[in-house]
Amino acid sequence: MSAMRLITLTTDFGLEDAYVGVMKGVILGINPAASIVDLCHAVPPQDVRAAAFLLHTAWRYFPPGTIHVVVVDPGVGSQRRAIAVDVGAATFVAPDNGVLSYVLAKVKEARAVHLTNQRYWLPKVSATFHGRDIFAPVAAHLSLGVPLAELGEPLSLGELVTFPLPRPERQACTERSERGNGNWVGHVVHVDHFGNLVTDLEAEAIGDTQAVVIEVGGRRIVGVRRTYADGTPGEPMALIGSSGRLEIAVPGGQAARRLKAQIGDQVRLYRT
Amino acid sequence: MSAMRLITLTTDFGLEDAYVGVMKGVILGINPAASIVDLCHAVPPQDVRAAAFLLHTAWRYFPPGTIHVVVVDPGVGSQRRAIAVDVGAATFVAPDNGVLSYVLAKVKEARAVHLTNQRYWLPKVSATFHGRDIFAPVAAHLSLGVPLAELGEPLSLGELVTFPLPRPERQACTERSERGNGNWVGHVVHVDHFGNLVTDLEAEAIGDTQAVVIEVGGRRIVGVRRTYADGTPGEPMALIGSSGRLEIAVPGGQAARRLKAQIGDQVRLYRT
Amino acid sequence: MSAMRLITLTTDFGLEDAYVGVMKGVILGINPAASIVDLCHAVPPQDVRAAAFLLHTAWRYFPPGTIHVVVVDPGVGSQRRAIAVDVGAATFVAPDNGVLSYVLAKVKEARAVHLTNQRYWLPKVSATFHGRDIFAPVAAHLSLGVPLAELGEPLSLGELVTFPLPRPERQACTERSERGNGNWVGHVVHVDHFGNLVTDLEAEAIGDTQAVVIEVGGRRIVGVRRTYADGTPGEPMALIGSSGRLEIAVPGGQAARRLKAQIGDQVRLYRT
Repeated sequence: MSAMRLITLTTDFGLEDAYVGVMKGVILGINPAASIVDLCHAVPPQDVRAAAFLLHTAWRYFPPGTIHVVVVDPGVGSQRRAIAVDVGAATFVAPDNGVLSYVLAKVKEARAVHLTNQRYWLPKVSATFHGRDIFAPVAAHLSLGVPLAELGEPLSLGELVTFPLPRPERQACTERSERGNGNWVGHVVHVDHFGNLVTDLEAEAIGDTQAVVIEVGGRRIVGVRRTYADGTPGEPMALIGSSGRLEIAVPGGQAARRLKAQIGDQVRLYRT
Repeated sequence: MSAMRLITLTTDFGLEDAYVGVMKGVILGINPAASIVDLCHAVPPQDVRAAAFLLHTAWRYFPPGTIHVVVVDPGVGSQRRAIAVDVGAATFVAPDNGVLSYVLAKVKEARAVHLTNQRYWLPKVSATFHGRDIFAPVAAHLSLGVPLAELGEPLSLGELVTFPLPRPERQACTERSERGNGNWVGHVVHVDHFGNLVTDLEAEAIGDTQAVVIEVGGRRIVGVRRTYADGTPGEPMALIGSSGRLEIAVPGGQAARRLKAQIGDQVRLYRT
Repeated sequence: MSAMRLITLTTDFGLEDAYVGVMKGVILGINPAASIVDLCHAVPPQDVRAAAFLLHTAWRYFPPGTIHVVVVDPGVGSQRRAIAVDVGAATFVAPDNGVLSYVLAKVKEARAVHLTNQRYWLPKVSATFHGRDIFAPVAAHLSLGVPLAELGEPLSLGELVTFPLPRPERQACTERSERGNGNWVGHVVHVDHFGNLVTDLEAEAIGDTQAVVIEVGGRRIVGVRRTYADGTPGEPMALIGSSGRLEIAVPGGQAARRLKAQIGDQVRLYRT
């Protein structure tokens, strides 16, 4: 039961306003024993894809039963649905705008509801701040043990909004490599605080990385190292990052700036 | 009793230093069961008015008995008083510099004390960090049930420092409108993380908004919409924001930048 | 026992990613009753000295038994050791890279271990995120009462990495002062959010400050004031700051910008 108390918050609200604090006030007013963790409030404004990726790399590190609230919600107040989705190991409370796309692509089964039962909302609901008026109180009631089915009408997973995930392509051979399969074309999906480029090339998919060349931003990087300390300060290097994906880093520098790279850029991996 | 454990912090300390963390260490050293919520630490340095407005829009969303600590304190170490004010639904611990002006303007009765009882402070008080040495320990002792009257000498509300609140003016008619009363001149009082302009024109005061024109920054905006999604991307729009005030937004953009508007600018509302 | 629940986090992760949140998820998965406080996550990337100073000014304000986790770790994944150090009043969990230099310089005795017992780590350890995979779980197990000696091999204090601390010099006399001893040459060791210059000249070392002149950035400042309110808005002033060190401030402004000063700059104090 104790883990059920745990609620995380992911928003694009920033920390210059009191919006995040107000959501916590609403939650603690309903469940004073809730334990609240900030996952991130610096999602770029209204960037649903960035929030989706961030959530994806983080949620499995929380204990079973954790409730994850995501409020990146450009359609607030419109006809977009508010939903709660129980995937077994966790429950997500969010707008139905694709922000759960990565999560849903990886789980085997899930139960979803359209949040329609106003009994679990604040008495007065604004048109512009459902984080405070709907998502926070719903999460708090869930943390008290209110069953998912109580919160609204059931939805099939097929009814939920998802966006197509960028999928790395496997290529049999190319002009640069005639060693057969095992070449990949992926993408930069995230740039972190250190300027590291996180790609969608997952270690378990790409397999052996002993004799490879990486191409990104017009630059060739030979080999995949184990850790930042194995690189040369100031020089681009490749490694498998902490989320299990191929990453490009510049030790002591910023790979994004150095390679003028951004989200969506292609990253190629060749066998040599 | 459990809600009594809840303490919020509002400061202009930013998050680059350990000042906020140290205040939490002091509080938890006195009351290990305290639950601490950050309301905001990005108040512009020494901007007492900004802190006052932020507190005003947030505090009512916290459970009864919550203790709100505010440390925006340009006069720290001078003769300015440190105070605690119990307004019934909440208790505020702050410097007596007007930061409670909005709160006090709306509550019916309150009890205030001048914090003079050093028994509830840290043993050694610096001249420059009363947040750590006075406000945090006083809040922690309050959260343990120490009565307000124990903390110092009683003060009448009239003795507290308050600043004049900007008051929107109601105008009977103007050169632009001859429909009689119902026209208003208000002000931008806050610019949020999304660049939205929050005004002091409260929905319940201005009444019906079905046929109005808003003027701000030399721009005319026709009508008040319900939500961001009802606007046109990139175009200024007006709506009633989540704090119940008239707001100017630019969907997908930044109204403050687009309209070159800032705190204090006039906002006019005409009936058409 | 209750204070043992308290864990602080200091990192250079920033708040744009979910790294900090993920560490909290790992801790709360192991000890759901842990109470976690952010000390600072805005340490300049890989700046071990800045983290060391920040920790030094903060840790004594936390209750006995607090566990401080520091993850500023440019050598992650290399041969640098991960350590835990119990100094009696607190326990530190950190990479062995000098980040505890200030703490260790001031404590009388301490017990240290090299974190080698993988039983207290996450099952799968990445090469790049030991904050999540080693430091967070070790801190959580410590907070549950696991003895230090269980976590790995004992280390003598002499084996720990420390860096030489900048030491202010006492000078008998100079061309500017012939009053004998009591003149000092110190350094700027920190610039805070308000632009205040914090020096390594400690109040208890420099003694009486009644008749002194401070020189910094080519500017002479006469006298040491008690508090910011005793200065003149816009003019550089000196005072003893909240960490007990000589500080240079500009009331209503930014001393660092005004004096073009930065960390490492010399600060001289003369008797007049």
